[in-house]
Amino acid sequence: MKISLDCIPCLIRQALSAARMVSADPAVHQRIVREVLLWIGGMTLEEPPPVLSQRIHRWLRGILGMEDPYRDAKDQQNRMAMSLLPELRAKIEATLDPLPLTMAVRIAIAGNVIDMGVYDNMTESSVRESVRQALTKPFVGDRIGFGKTVREAKSILYLTDNAGEIAFDRLLIEQLSPTRVTVAVRGGPVINDATMTDARAVGLHEIVEIIDNGSDAPGTLLDDCSQEFKRRFTEADLILAKGQGNFETLSDTPGNIFFLFMAKCPVIAAHAGVPIGAHVLVRSNAGNSN
Amino acid sequence: MKISLDCIPCLIRQALSAARMVSADPAVHQRIVREVLLWIGGMTLEEPPPVLSQRIHRWLRGILGMEDPYRDAKDQQNRMAMSLLPELRAKIEATLDPLPLTMAVRIAIAGNVIDMGVYDNMTESSVRESVRQALTKPFVGDRIGFGKTVREAKSILYLTDNAGEIAFDRLLIEQLSPTRVTVAVRGGPVINDATMTDARAVGLHEIVEIIDNGSDAPGTLLDDCSQEFKRRFTEADLILAKGQGNFETLSDTPGNIFFLFMAKCPVIAAHAGVPIGAHVLVRSNAGNSN
Repeated sequence: MKISLDCIPCLIRQALSAARMVSADPAVHQRIVREVLLWIGGMTLEEPPPVLSQRIHRWLRGILGMEDPYRDAKDQQNRMAMSLLPELRAKIEATLDPLPLTMAVRIAIAGNVIDMGVYDNMTESSVRESVRQALTKPFVGDRIGFGKTVREAKSILYLTDNAGEIAFDRLLIEQLSPTRVTVAVRGGPVINDATMTDARAVGLHEIVEIIDNGSDAPGTLLDDCSQEFKRRFTEADLILAKGQGNFETLSDTPGNIFFLFMAKCPVIAAHAGVPIGAHVLVRSNAGNSN
Repeated sequence: MKISLDCIPCLIRQALSAARMVSADPAVHQRIVREVLLWIGGMTLEEPPPVLSQRIHRWLRGILGMEDPYRDAKDQQNRMAMSLLPELRAKIEATLDPLPLTMAVRIAIAGNVIDMGVYDNMTESSVRESVRQALTKPFVGDRIGFGKTVREAKSILYLTDNAGEIAFDRLLIEQLSPTRVTVAVRGGPVINDATMTDARAVGLHEIVEIIDNGSDAPGTLLDDCSQEFKRRFTEADLILAKGQGNFETLSDTPGNIFFLFMAKCPVIAAHAGVPIGAHVLVRSNAGNSN
């Protein structure tokens, strides 16, 4: 999906929030906001919003001389999410109806609340509340079609979104027969998006192969990804793509893709045809129907 | 008060909202947003936010070739507010404790909800709800000091804010002994701010002298106002300034000024030292203490 004019105030708010997250210097905050205004003012507005986020965060890292300014936040998010896993795993195992797969999908979508691109003041209690709601709140989407597609797929490529959330993804992956699953993380740090470090922190390397996509965009911009990732993307029977960033960048891409995310912004909710706040399991419109 | 970096996403949202209000052409919307981004990117950020709003709306009027794109909206707001007056006037007249003046202040502040700079989707029911709340909700501020200052003032200059709201101002002005009151409106159209047309539409010319300030800023930028207005401003014993725009532009100006407004944005609420959403009657920190 292309950037909407409604995304622009939000992207500037995100840039300011990121600047404050990574620096205490008001001159840095102002310099970053000013640069972002001029960038966006001169952009074509034909690309999805994560293209701009990628540029903003590359630039932030450059002027700060920090490879991964969100590393501490991500470590904390992983620890917090891991502390919830035993209780959540027990809930999945105890579930008879709806199926354990459905409960695991709910939990994986609930984990998408751990998003520092959208929320400035995300707390452990807001994550717990999201999970609590998700355990009973039905998601929008074709649960039965999803179950059938998952059963038939020989290979599944699972595109993660954020740190912390990736621990919840592990619970869903455990329900997918992990031997056929490959997990892909971002190729470099951006916001609190999960990288290889986070996948290992939640123990995914113990149950699946993990690859990175070669890109530091907060989404999956295929043109920016490695050849190896693109090959895996094309060859996978089924792609599960977590989070708004992957939806923004892949919603018009052909492929057998299911998107799992919380519709946290009005532009994305409208693009997906769901109410804002909805927990969504949506099949790509551009996808095959195998 | 100077613009805050937090104002910038909001100003861009306002510009987009205004563009959509006055034109149905997406190319116009994009052109306006782009221009505003480049303007703000190159600004000194030393001036109050209404300076930028003034520039945005002048430019909008220029490209649309419309002198007052909000005229229909303002007419509708005046009619709606006038339809509420008999009931509200009766409430003021029936009030024993708190004083009728206090009830009139509450209603005048409640009228500040009619603000198209802040609210995209303001409806008659949201105005009615604001008034209903204001009738019982205490405002933040020195009610007794205000009453004493009003009693002692020989001349009062009343700076209005928005159309519709100006009808509610009339109820307060009726409580102020109108012969000593002069009402000042904006010198030209900007957003839904009240001009001479609106003052007459609610019948203020029947009870007070009305002047305009010579400026089309959504606030009171003294350097941009007429010599005659500045003389009246300096000579007034007491100035009552309605709305966020007048607070943003006059909060650092010497004078015996009381500001009456709803704190609708977090930056202004912080600057005034009140919670967001508060109904405020605050004396200028830069004011005399006569």
